[in-house]
Amino acid sequence: MTKSRGSLIVLSGFAGVGKGTVLKSLFETKEGYAYSVSATTRDPRPGEVDGVHYFFVTKERFEEMIAKEELLEHACYVGNYYGTPKAYVDKKLEEGFDVILEIEVQGALAIKEKVPEAVLIYMLPPSAEALKDRLTGRGTETEEVIMKRLKRACEEAKGAEQYDYIIVNDDADECALELNTLIRAQRLRAKSNLPFIRKIRNDLKHITEEGE
Amino acid sequence: MTKSRGSLIVLSGFAGVGKGTVLKSLFETKEGYAYSVSATTRDPRPGEVDGVHYFFVTKERFEEMIAKEELLEHACYVGNYYGTPKAYVDKKLEEGFDVILEIEVQGALAIKEKVPEAVLIYMLPPSAEALKDRLTGRGTETEEVIMKRLKRACEEAKGAEQYDYIIVNDDADECALELNTLIRAQRLRAKSNLPFIRKIRNDLKHITEEGE
Repeated sequence: MTKSRGSLIVLSGFAGVGKGTVLKSLFETKEGYAYSVSATTRDPRPGEVDGVHYFFVTKERFEEMIAKEELLEHACYVGNYYGTPKAYVDKKLEEGFDVILEIEVQGALAIKEKVPEAVLIYMLPPSAEALKDRLTGRGTETEEVIMKRLKRACEEAKGAEQYDYIIVNDDADECALELNTLIRAQRLRAKSNLPFIRKIRNDLKHITEEGE
Repeated sequence: MTKSRGSLIVLSGFAGVGKGTVLKSLFETKEGYAYSVSATTRDPRPGEVDGVHYFFVTKERFEEMIAKEELLEHACYVGNYYGTPKAYVDKKLEEGFDVILEIEVQGALAIKEKVPEAVLIYMLPPSAEALKDRLTGRGTETEEVIMKRLKRACEEAKGAEQYDYIIVNDDADECALELNTLIRAQRLRAKSNLPFIRKIRNDLKHITEEGE
């Protein structure tokens, strides 16, 4: 097979499920992955680099990106825009990277509508109790905040049913390996390999025509 | 996750691509797979066991199976019926086996229509030349027969585009491992895990309601 275009992977999951730790493990142990870089209108924080952590743009520029359909999805939080620039994702996919986009359910489903070949993966805890324990174990949140997060998780879980795959995070390193397997399997999708199928077909045609 | 229902895997590929060798390697090295057993009206050959190699049935019984929609697909070759009994496949899937059904393009697409969650995998040679070499290397076929097979492969290749995945058989053992990875990844499909997603959701609901 020729080196194929990468897959667009949209990863979602409850707050506290451990997406960050799993992705850290994945990026540290496996090659060929790229993060999607979001565009935002919020100010850079100390240490944040334009084009690495975010593409920092003005409100005018962001609204132009919306109007020109340069974004795969966008949302507004606390008065600032956040969005996924199509051009950057496309470039990385074309280079053969599997591009990981960490985003919530609404944005994920919006992307699936625009990019049907995007692969939506929802990360779940092994159980509801495990999620509660993990949030409690952090020791940084009040009982009230934890309950609010669990309630939100409960609402979000319905969206998971519309995803392509679910993945259970019991151990971060194992989950990263499973995620890698799942993402690599996407390279085998027939739709991603039409040029290869067609080449074999043409070559078979030539061989049999020569044989006549 | 609870032990889930297996996946129905439909495997196709050109004559000579090496499906048999790959499946032999898969079944010898991995657990949890079952072959689909076909029903047929042809007579048993010496050594063939009813219910193992085929379900041997009369023409009347076979036509009853068609009428009662007890078959996932069926076809007629050289005056005999061949078909895939739904009940047997269902039983094996329910027991948690991944069921492998080796069948040609027409039958595969018919199954996909009836069982949308079936996973269609097309096995391809690394190149058209490699397929020709493999057929020639057998030394059992005349040039004319080989050309006929290559021509048929060329026609069939178009169907491969409608499959879910393609898999390239360069080395049978490696291909079996890749096939195993691909099939196991299907266990993570969200649609196969709705009970697990719903259980977490319900448990989250109970936890947050108790917390109020």
